[in-house]
Amino acid sequence: MGCAVGQMASFSKTITETDVYGFAGITGDFNPLHVDAVKAEAGRFGERIAHGMLSASFISTVIATRLPGPGTIYMGQEVRFLNPVRFGDTITATVVIEELLDRGRVRLHTFVENQKGETVVDGYALVKLPRKEGEGENGEKSKQILGCHLQSRS
Amino acid sequence: MGCAVGQMASFSKTITETDVYGFAGITGDFNPLHVDAVKAEAGRFGERIAHGMLSASFISTVIATRLPGPGTIYMGQEVRFLNPVRFGDTITATVVIEELLDRGRVRLHTFVENQKGETVVDGYALVKLPRKEGEGENGEKSKQILGCHLQSRS
Repeated sequence: MGCAVGQMASFSKTITETDVYGFAGITGDFNPLHVDAVKAEAGRFGERIAHGMLSASFISTVIATRLPGPGTIYMGQEVRFLNPVRFGDTITATVVIEELLDRGRVRLHTFVENQKGETVVDGYALVKLPRKEGEGENGEKSKQILGCHLQSRS
Repeated sequence: MGCAVGQMASFSKTITETDVYGFAGITGDFNPLHVDAVKAEAGRFGERIAHGMLSASFISTVIATRLPGPGTIYMGQEVRFLNPVRFGDTITATVVIEELLDRGRVRLHTFVENQKGETVVDGYALVKLPRKEGEGENGEKSKQILGCHLQSRS
């Protein structure tokens, strides 16, 4: 159950008005681009779109619940916002193990695509694998790095 | 009303169980660390904590609604998750103009602190300032870079 370069996992969801308005209510980001249909219609996308950070948050969902999964320490994330997510778009966030680093740290390629295969968010995450306390060879407490929870694209 | 290095704006909110459960419902991130009081109590923080990406999302709130404000194009964000946000913590997301780049792009220092002044999220954003179409000197259409909407820490 070890982690290996190339392992991946995904999470998909159709983004609805409900999601965007809920996210606006929680974060306070009531930018007209997201919640004002009249102003958004006159803007560059011609309609309301989802918050970029909402789409990016699904990366965290994959990391925290699938790969590497619960217990993972999320150290950092970088994202580039490349395309808008419109209400009704179905997006898929994918995490791929890119590089195994020292001290249980792993660099992940993280990206979100829409139903047309267009990348809407692209970037990298740095995480620390979950560890389990155990007994070392000499009876001392040691920490064992736990493996990745899921290895397949779902 | 131009943008200048050092201008800053902030947004504060007390993070509650309601926020965290709402965010979990929208994103699907039901990591026990956030929504299972029993498991979280046995974990490294001793209680449930907020999602890192929830705290990071308030950076987007400041950018989209205050500085530079509506019309800003959010190109990218990098964040490091440094400390947990516990239910009841009051966090303040702050954006500071760090560098004015070419083509209306601006590099922002972005960070989130808790009520004790501890940094919980730190990083940088790249944005493009809002532009307004207008008439150029020779009657051609030109785009004018609009200034920053807010200049003070609020």
